[in-house]
Amino acid sequence: MGFIRNLDGGFSVIENLEVSGAREGKFGVTIIVSRGSTASAVFTSNNVVAAPVKYTKKAIKNGRISAVFVNSGNANCFTGEQGFKDCETLVELISRDLKIPKDEIAISSTGVIGREMPIDIISKVAYESLSKLGNKAENSLAAARAIMTTDTFPKECAVEVTLTNGETVKIAGITKGSGMIAPNMGTMLSFIVTDAVIPANQINKALKKAADVSFNMIVVDGDESTNDTCLMMANGASDVEAVNDGEVDVNFQEALNYLCIDLAKKMARDGEGATKFIEANVFGAKDSEDAKLASKSIISSSLFKSAVFGGDPNWGRIVSAIGYSGCDLNPDIITISIADGEDEVDLVRKGEILAFENTPYLERAEKIMQSKNVIVNIDMDLGEGQATAWGCDLTYDYVKINAEYTT
Amino acid sequence: MGFIRNLDGGFSVIENLEVSGAREGKFGVTIIVSRGSTASAVFTSNNVVAAPVKYTKKAIKNGRISAVFVNSGNANCFTGEQGFKDCETLVELISRDLKIPKDEIAISSTGVIGREMPIDIISKVAYESLSKLGNKAENSLAAARAIMTTDTFPKECAVEVTLTNGETVKIAGITKGSGMIAPNMGTMLSFIVTDAVIPANQINKALKKAADVSFNMIVVDGDESTNDTCLMMANGASDVEAVNDGEVDVNFQEALNYLCIDLAKKMARDGEGATKFIEANVFGAKDSEDAKLASKSIISSSLFKSAVFGGDPNWGRIVSAIGYSGCDLNPDIITISIADGEDEVDLVRKGEILAFENTPYLERAEKIMQSKNVIVNIDMDLGEGQATAWGCDLTYDYVKINAEYTT
Repeated sequence: MGFIRNLDGGFSVIENLEVSGAREGKFGVTIIVSRGSTASAVFTSNNVVAAPVKYTKKAIKNGRISAVFVNSGNANCFTGEQGFKDCETLVELISRDLKIPKDEIAISSTGVIGREMPIDIISKVAYESLSKLGNKAENSLAAARAIMTTDTFPKECAVEVTLTNGETVKIAGITKGSGMIAPNMGTMLSFIVTDAVIPANQINKALKKAADVSFNMIVVDGDESTNDTCLMMANGASDVEAVNDGEVDVNFQEALNYLCIDLAKKMARDGEGATKFIEANVFGAKDSEDAKLASKSIISSSLFKSAVFGGDPNWGRIVSAIGYSGCDLNPDIITISIADGEDEVDLVRKGEILAFENTPYLERAEKIMQSKNVIVNIDMDLGEGQATAWGCDLTYDYVKINAEYTT
Repeated sequence: MGFIRNLDGGFSVIENLEVSGAREGKFGVTIIVSRGSTASAVFTSNNVVAAPVKYTKKAIKNGRISAVFVNSGNANCFTGEQGFKDCETLVELISRDLKIPKDEIAISSTGVIGREMPIDIISKVAYESLSKLGNKAENSLAAARAIMTTDTFPKECAVEVTLTNGETVKIAGITKGSGMIAPNMGTMLSFIVTDAVIPANQINKALKKAADVSFNMIVVDGDESTNDTCLMMANGASDVEAVNDGEVDVNFQEALNYLCIDLAKKMARDGEGATKFIEANVFGAKDSEDAKLASKSIISSSLFKSAVFGGDPNWGRIVSAIGYSGCDLNPDIITISIADGEDEVDLVRKGEILAFENTPYLERAEKIMQSKNVIVNIDMDLGEGQATAWGCDLTYDYVKINAEYTT
């Protein structure tokens, strides 16, 4: 894909954009200002929805967002009417300071559920963040840091893409998410800005497509958050249209997929307590829906995740996870291999088991399972469906982090 | 329920029944002989099915089982044609020794997937088990022990039930299951015998009803096994019919539910690495399907399970788990409380949050979360649906046990 080039600097690659981040203890505030942007977002499908999600769903209806306010440390979820008032207070604060109409401000929160927002401290950090707005690489990094909760590293990605007509635009994004990460959005917040010109309804279509192959294909623990938000803005600073004949440019869509997959993989790699990264590739499934079921089932299995942590080549757990995923399969023709980027070994080849005890296959598998990157490849040999899902191992630290989170 | 009385002694309470168990290292063999029994069974819904499950599905079609052979230490799953031959070898061995027709023998396995059956050692342990058949309490206990894998204690239950016509019959059962326990059967094996007279098709109906409120309502890790089997035999030793007018006696059904719930709770309490037992009761759901979704979602949440391990009253994770379960809910009228058998405290009452920080509600909740038994009660206030699900905490030891299982 020669039309996509990686860039350094996160949001700083986009013109007419200012970002900032500030933090006091566990409370962080990230602000993204991209005036006059068209915008769309996808949200959690949890039936319990945080106040800021409700607020932003309403704000984004007009397809126009100029600023995003994000706080970490408190989810502002299950906080009743007060929670909604707190959203208004914070939006009001941003609106006054930046002279942006309230209905062009989105708000997003991540943290503990069912605790009143500590509005005083969050307002204080908000003012500090506002005072630091800028368009340098360090501003983007500060923004990526301020939204972190149990994340261990900030997550940014920026690309330049050459459209089919030869013109170039840029896309940049930041994300957070570490626990409560499940298919159909976890506690993940992702904010993406492009300098292309795209109407809000086309952003919506492109973002949904990209989320389906990226954020919706990672699982850390199967718990789905009440606050997930992936919001994308297009500020048009490049004056380049990314829509041809009423469709998003195919290169732009590829680049957006690439960026979202990069951010999603960073989330999986930084899953709570993770020491290893898991990729499951399923080929030859009956259809792509089946391939998704199978690949997600593998990276979601607590048993396989524990085996990866321990470096135990217990590949029967892969078989079992595919079996209960609900996808069509025929054990007599399936091929299963594992790889680590250097070696790849077949465990089962067209239904024939190779990795019995005391075989070189199992010995090589043991070595691969020690790697920091464990790749599972499945060929179902049933059709054309394929999908990739990403996850991480289940570790003592996952339990530790989540046994101690609020106290 | 005065018509149900607990009995000691497991299978020893049933006449015309012999059981035994023997073990060598990780390989155990349990044998249950109940000649001329009508029988039925429910099996895993995993699409990958172990050889013994395929074998027993066929054997039980005629509704008649006289003996059950069970081995632990190897699942005989994903073992190709050889796996099926190994089933035949073992059934042949039992058939010759006990002079029971081969088509009246069921076989069941639990252990590692994708490894050839070590047929020599299992045959040897089988002969040892055969030599120990008896009808004492110690025989039943040995049988319950020999099917254990990572279980930490043997699981038996026996009851006497007074039917609606005043006559009494007995039901006894053993079970194992510790990891790979999920709704719709985990790696759980359960064997139940009654001395009542019941045709196989009625056993089937009664067993499905009982499994739905017991084995299918426990979750340890959400991984569903390839080998699950719950098999029930009726040997008619009491000469008492447990069927009236073509329906299973209601008291008998209650007693069977009671026995299966007792066995299921023992499995949940002994979940791999568990230090605490969790019960989730959902009342007032739209319907019983919704109540099941919500209660299972709570006890399945890795985040809530970790919080229980840490004694952390992070009740927002309960809210989140109900939210993504897919059930109907209205946060404005829901009531959520937690209890430990001594104290019960409302966290949310009719939508109003009580358990904010520094409140006595949260302090009491903290204390309850330290208990060995954490009970979550939810009143959705939407309808008549109710359900109970059981599980356990997620601990360092769960990870440890599963990181080291095959190696």
